[in-house]
Amino acid sequence: MPTERSGAIVLASGGMDSCVLAALAAREHEMAMLHASYGQRTAARERQAFRDIARHYGVPAPRRLEVDLSHLAAIGGSSLTDTSMPVPDGDLAREGIPTSYVPFRNANLLAVAAAWGEVLGAQAIYFGAMEEDSSGYPDCREAFVAAFNRLVDVGSRPDTHIEVVAPLLHLTKAEVVRLGLRLEAPFHLTWSCYRCDDVACGRCDSCLLRLRGFREAGARDPIPYAEAPG
Amino acid sequence: MPTERSGAIVLASGGMDSCVLAALAAREHEMAMLHASYGQRTAARERQAFRDIARHYGVPAPRRLEVDLSHLAAIGGSSLTDTSMPVPDGDLAREGIPTSYVPFRNANLLAVAAAWGEVLGAQAIYFGAMEEDSSGYPDCREAFVAAFNRLVDVGSRPDTHIEVVAPLLHLTKAEVVRLGLRLEAPFHLTWSCYRCDDVACGRCDSCLLRLRGFREAGARDPIPYAEAPG
Repeated sequence: MPTERSGAIVLASGGMDSCVLAALAAREHEMAMLHASYGQRTAARERQAFRDIARHYGVPAPRRLEVDLSHLAAIGGSSLTDTSMPVPDGDLAREGIPTSYVPFRNANLLAVAAAWGEVLGAQAIYFGAMEEDSSGYPDCREAFVAAFNRLVDVGSRPDTHIEVVAPLLHLTKAEVVRLGLRLEAPFHLTWSCYRCDDVACGRCDSCLLRLRGFREAGARDPIPYAEAPG
Repeated sequence: MPTERSGAIVLASGGMDSCVLAALAAREHEMAMLHASYGQRTAARERQAFRDIARHYGVPAPRRLEVDLSHLAAIGGSSLTDTSMPVPDGDLAREGIPTSYVPFRNANLLAVAAAWGEVLGAQAIYFGAMEEDSSGYPDCREAFVAAFNRLVDVGSRPDTHIEVVAPLLHLTKAEVVRLGLRLEAPFHLTWSCYRCDDVACGRCDSCLLRLRGFREAGARDPIPYAEAPG
């Protein structure tokens, strides 16, 4: 008799971290995948990457959910959603929170996931935040994950038992690349660039972090870049 | 020199509780008002009530935000959004969580408010949850409010200082009615019925709670009902 696997929702932007996250979840769980557009510049390209990754892992339509949080763009305050603010060239040594921070975005995404998780009876939400090697966003830290778990615990039905897990939290980008290669994660289907949706710019924070990760892992990034990686 | 008043966002469904909430916030703060549609049956009528209340308090367009969270209806699991599930006649003595519970709805609403609050630089979010005299929803309890405050504290910019306040949390409906009458809250503009959008049904949980509140306060509810209040 086959053992029934417990259910997990994977928050998947379509980037390389969420691709590795899906590779991890697929080994342990019956996987559902959630994607949100929120008016970010490269929304259409990210959605395509999400669909390609979901197809790669055989996640059927009833276990895929695409939601529109375009009010986050209406609220503004981020160069990721406000096209009147430039996305600056990346600077991984810069202090403080970059303009690409979308106010309270991850709490909004996790709140949707938790609502869906209550209805699906999921046991876990896979969240791809990275604390060590990220852009310094406040909603990518361990304390945030712990606070969200407390919120789900007290704010959902008594028979809901969902845990937000963040298995990449303390990995560097290079470690995520190595883990993804080991799990045969389909990096060629992913998209990370904040600026462009045809060829990655190679210069925004997200491209710089990704390129450094592949370089430090001694691996080749399979997606095309406008600027040859240095 | 006039003192600058601090900013507060009022979560306003358009019901009687959020109307009293707006009356309270208007005395203390520069008020902004947030309304969410989430595919509930009476969404259009509630939005109208929201706009009427905002106009009553002179909240200008840039400080009003209406958001569409219709993915909560797509996620389902509630008789409030799933028209294939009946909204049962109310029973205020019933144990457990009623079918009108929308999974994790209030966390989704508060997450939008906190994102907007970061951009506005608001100091408070007014949340109309009532623990004592509610329908038993898990996301209307003091522990939930405390957990959300912790989440905002750790998950937003260091210079964001938003507190979720829930001044109705420990009031009965009758006390909310009395408070509203004292503050001259425009109850005639509000809408509470879960079922209908022209004349309130008088029989769903929401109507029963409202009618009992007015009755216990010895006051007359100014909105029309299909069934004469008993």
